[in-house]
Amino acid sequence: MAEVATARRSRITPEREAELYGAVLDLLREVGYDALTMDAVAARTRSSKATLYRQWGGKAELVVKAIRHNKPGQVTDIDTGSLRGDLHALLTREDDCTMEQNSALLRGVAMALHRNPDLRQALREQLIEPETAEFRRVLQRAVDRGEIRPDCPALDFLLHMMVGGFATTVLLDEQPPTRAFLASYIDAVILPALGVPAP
Amino acid sequence: MAEVATARRSRITPEREAELYGAVLDLLREVGYDALTMDAVAARTRSSKATLYRQWGGKAELVVKAIRHNKPGQVTDIDTGSLRGDLHALLTREDDCTMEQNSALLRGVAMALHRNPDLRQALREQLIEPETAEFRRVLQRAVDRGEIRPDCPALDFLLHMMVGGFATTVLLDEQPPTRAFLASYIDAVILPALGVPAP
Repeated sequence: MAEVATARRSRITPEREAELYGAVLDLLREVGYDALTMDAVAARTRSSKATLYRQWGGKAELVVKAIRHNKPGQVTDIDTGSLRGDLHALLTREDDCTMEQNSALLRGVAMALHRNPDLRQALREQLIEPETAEFRRVLQRAVDRGEIRPDCPALDFLLHMMVGGFATTVLLDEQPPTRAFLASYIDAVILPALGVPAP
Repeated sequence: MAEVATARRSRITPEREAELYGAVLDLLREVGYDALTMDAVAARTRSSKATLYRQWGGKAELVVKAIRHNKPGQVTDIDTGSLRGDLHALLTREDDCTMEQNSALLRGVAMALHRNPDLRQALREQLIEPETAEFRRVLQRAVDRGEIRPDCPALDFLLHMMVGGFATTVLLDEQPPTRAFLASYIDAVILPALGVPAP
């Protein structure tokens, strides 16, 4: 929604926007967040720096918007009729290869968080909070169906449970988790914590 | 055990060893892992570099041993008679201030993992695997008492659940979790995932 509004206001076509985000992600993979400059983005995309700043405000916002644009579909597009179905369907959005590319990207950004409060803020506002809100809708549907008790305390910790499933293998093995691993983790940890029986 | 054997072999007193580890942690807080040199450790502790290498093998091993030495007590010293009691007792080993200091230290080391395979290996072998083994004993006692079913699938994911509780707030808020937060997380996520009713 926000992207569409911005694109309309400034008459950047969605194709041009996608191309620009792709170039930002390429640069991010090549040089990492700290070494990425707005000059390099401008040169790579044949834009003026003034346009980039006017459109995105700064490097942190541009990078986070590019990551968000790269994510496959909306969480709330998924509605299988059961919480387990929804969580497992989320996994099939990305194959293991995409997951590996994205994991490397996100690890680079995670490393830069400590030194860059503006990146932390952009990540929280533009990516984590919207995604968390989408997950809350998935969970709310499960509450409405009677799968999760409305006062289930684990409802407040979905983000933490998911970070645990992702970040541990990335940190310790330099490997993103496979889909098979995440499917086991959903069944062994997330569903039981939410009081939903797993098969 | 390993430390005691090494200390005896090389006649470094436990006091001298503790002093040396303290200096390593001070340096780590001051300059971070990447900028920490064996020269600086040698100068700060008035040791010879040859001694340091002979005793610890290298920077990665020395840093991880220092972190391990700094940890309060053994997990398995705790035996309250219930899993919930044991997990909550683990939290009281560190107050929020110590947790904040250690969190900053561990964040610095986590940031350096990607660039340093030897650090990753030392961390896994010297810290994660021994701590995981201790936690397994805590969980095994709960299985033996009949609190956890022996085939509970969440038994394989304790490390992931705990990393989720710790790392999420550290990454996003630059703050370690408080003891109160971790206590809620244990009751809301870890115990239910293990099939142990929380109050």
